[in-house]
Amino acid sequence: MDKEYDVVIIGAGSGGYIAAIRAGQLGLSVACIESNPYAAPDGQPRPGGTCLNVGCIPSKALLASSHLYEQVVHHTAEHGISTGDATIDVNKMVDRKDGVVTKMAKGIEYLFKKNKVDFIKARARFAGTQGETYDLELSSEGRSQRIGARHVIIATGSKPRQLPGTRIDNMIVCDNAGALDFREVPKHLCVIGAGVIGLELGSVWRRLGADVTLLDAMPDFLPGCDTAVSKEMLKLMSSQGMKFELGAAIGDIALNGAGARISYRDHAGASKELTCDKVIVAIGRVPSTDGLDLDAIGLELDQRGYVPVDERCRTALPKVFAIGDVVRGPMLAHKAEEEAIMVAEIIAGQAGHVNYNAIPSIIYTSPEAAWVGKTAQELAREGRAFKSGQFPFSANGRALGHGESQGFVKVLADAQSDLVLGVHIVSPLASEMIGEAAMALEFSASSEDIARICHAHPTLYEAIREAALAVDKRALNI
Amino acid sequence: MDKEYDVVIIGAGSGGYIAAIRAGQLGLSVACIESNPYAAPDGQPRPGGTCLNVGCIPSKALLASSHLYEQVVHHTAEHGISTGDATIDVNKMVDRKDGVVTKMAKGIEYLFKKNKVDFIKARARFAGTQGETYDLELSSEGRSQRIGARHVIIATGSKPRQLPGTRIDNMIVCDNAGALDFREVPKHLCVIGAGVIGLELGSVWRRLGADVTLLDAMPDFLPGCDTAVSKEMLKLMSSQGMKFELGAAIGDIALNGAGARISYRDHAGASKELTCDKVIVAIGRVPSTDGLDLDAIGLELDQRGYVPVDERCRTALPKVFAIGDVVRGPMLAHKAEEEAIMVAEIIAGQAGHVNYNAIPSIIYTSPEAAWVGKTAQELAREGRAFKSGQFPFSANGRALGHGESQGFVKVLADAQSDLVLGVHIVSPLASEMIGEAAMALEFSASSEDIARICHAHPTLYEAIREAALAVDKRALNI
Repeated sequence: MDKEYDVVIIGAGSGGYIAAIRAGQLGLSVACIESNPYAAPDGQPRPGGTCLNVGCIPSKALLASSHLYEQVVHHTAEHGISTGDATIDVNKMVDRKDGVVTKMAKGIEYLFKKNKVDFIKARARFAGTQGETYDLELSSEGRSQRIGARHVIIATGSKPRQLPGTRIDNMIVCDNAGALDFREVPKHLCVIGAGVIGLELGSVWRRLGADVTLLDAMPDFLPGCDTAVSKEMLKLMSSQGMKFELGAAIGDIALNGAGARISYRDHAGASKELTCDKVIVAIGRVPSTDGLDLDAIGLELDQRGYVPVDERCRTALPKVFAIGDVVRGPMLAHKAEEEAIMVAEIIAGQAGHVNYNAIPSIIYTSPEAAWVGKTAQELAREGRAFKSGQFPFSANGRALGHGESQGFVKVLADAQSDLVLGVHIVSPLASEMIGEAAMALEFSASSEDIARICHAHPTLYEAIREAALAVDKRALNI
Repeated sequence: MDKEYDVVIIGAGSGGYIAAIRAGQLGLSVACIESNPYAAPDGQPRPGGTCLNVGCIPSKALLASSHLYEQVVHHTAEHGISTGDATIDVNKMVDRKDGVVTKMAKGIEYLFKKNKVDFIKARARFAGTQGETYDLELSSEGRSQRIGARHVIIATGSKPRQLPGTRIDNMIVCDNAGALDFREVPKHLCVIGAGVIGLELGSVWRRLGADVTLLDAMPDFLPGCDTAVSKEMLKLMSSQGMKFELGAAIGDIALNGAGARISYRDHAGASKELTCDKVIVAIGRVPSTDGLDLDAIGLELDQRGYVPVDERCRTALPKVFAIGDVVRGPMLAHKAEEEAIMVAEIIAGQAGHVNYNAIPSIIYTSPEAAWVGKTAQELAREGRAFKSGQFPFSANGRALGHGESQGFVKVLADAQSDLVLGVHIVSPLASEMIGEAAMALEFSASSEDIARICHAHPTLYEAIREAALAVDKRALNI
């Protein structure tokens, strides 16, 4: 064995790299293994995982660029601003995005060095155990080495769910990675899957001029969202020109040189066809454990392919943990980070826990949607009596000042105790406003508590307080 | 007497109108009196006070327009966006701002009706007492009426502090009201007073192409801010092209037809002159009680012109309260609102309190600055041992994605208990991020509490968590 570590982390994504840094801070000897080069120009594996390389970060960079383009084209006149015709150089936009990603990936490598984490660019597989130590074989460019691990954290993440019978070529039919690298604006883009990823990527290219149609097998739009949010979002996204076919049964995707022809049955069962030059398949993600050889240590996956863990991310083996997208729970970078910190601290002999009820979700469209806690439907299913307060941004001074007054804040609270159970926001800055809401859940705030806190004026986040007041039917500005 | 009310509120600004609505909600009979037409086209008094009419709201509308203009002119190229030469029609921008203000002022009149508040457009003065009732004379357009008030809330706000020897003509030498109504971009704008208002208004016109010089009598920039914030802000505002002359003793302001020549001594005592076409005087605000005839009920002002009140906003008279800018404490709309709610509830027989330690402050420049709680200097003066944690946005993914990675979050916590004592933010969205920080102070959070809360990724507000982690020297991404 070449070297033995206190902790070996397989995967350097949002969960893995944070676990490595935290374990390093705690004085443990740490190796973090990554095999995926993503789109790195040198072809070398790089840290950051899906989120940094082909997920949250690059999509947000493109969302920022396309949002600015849309502002220039459609929202300057109301402010008295005139420009000549605006054009966008898609290559430059995509190169800028790549620059952001590369900078941050280098940042993680710097953090690894700073925290004395050995970052090993290789593919890892379990090769068995030696006493209390797990034996890992690392292979890279035809060479292999063995390292020992007193603890292992599996943080191998997820991969796009495949659409049966459809091959991703990332030329015409793309997954999330390919969709971030279009070099021109499609004329007609078809997105299969009207979930978070589909809406975000669809928004980027719609803003830049593409006709965008989203097909989804589910009849309900954003079924995980509070119905107030999903209704508002469907209305807003449709008004922006995105077309939706919900409850669509996708049939054949026939490629021709210039694009694809998608056959499907609509919600009423009628046969339809759609011709487009690009297809993005965004029908969800599945856990990724390829090549880990979990058999070698006797670990079994559950029937959906996840590594089974308890609420502390412990697998069936006492010193093997798994975190992030490869285990149950929402596939979110910040959920993986929480688990990463918890597990690193548990390995170091500290306490650690994750409050799975206070993990925010965000859709980075324009306006954004963000929520934390329970939806009205979940509470109804649980039979929990609750009160609801809602406040529209059309009555918020800052929203009007900015000319972006769509959306609302909705606060749900227990009917008896007034405990805040969920906060649901549609707003241009919902992503940032959700911070206060998550803290309210963590501190078991009542809606009255929120209502009693001084909220700065003029801000969008005053709407949270107004919605909290509305729970008690005493909103002030509506 | 024409009518007797449970509560009469003098002034329909941020404090007054909220007090009126809340008192109306609580079933009290309420009148709210306003005499100021501000810039209303019909010359009729209108609600909303300084904040809505000539303060926060119109300045934020102009800041939004000028920010978009600056984005178009200077920040499109990095995203690959090309436009022809951009121009701005200042009249259109100003008209848009007026439209926002008018819409919101109408909204308050609607709220008055909804909550059965009599909104009376008149000037109020105390005319004495009749038994337990205060007698108020209201005059408007030469006519007058008398009403009785079982409780009075004085919410008459503030007015710009005058620069001795200088007349505001709102043509060349302007106060905050005139500065919001320029009909063309000044070539050279001189702002006397480098405080919040000066920085915001200076920013608007600097972005649109004016040369902007700020003169301030104080040698220290933003002396009320944490020094980390004031240093960063001075650096950033200077890098944007604003020129500062701190510690300047203003002498004569000589008007000529086209502008003004300002004589001053710089911080080293050297005589200097500055020629400009517009001057904004923004050297602070003083309480406004003109014409109230407080003598008639035996109320005296303090030596600085404020109505003296206790921590519940009670004056020396048991049923006369005063709130907002006319009493001690920061001159902020949301502080006035808190006091308004407290006083309305106390009058209705409920409890009420304001936590003056958790009132956020914001500077709406770009980036913004926002803070809540104590500064490092205040803690040092109090002799309180504290720890500090700081995290820069240059290490924040969303900030990099947006290309706006200036600034930081700084968290101050008690050295022993870890109680959060202050949070100081410089960031494009500091104004919205401060919500989480204010809640942390209200819930007596420790920095460890903030560090244990799941912060959504990628967001700017993750930096609050990182700064909280930095208090314990365990920030993850730096």
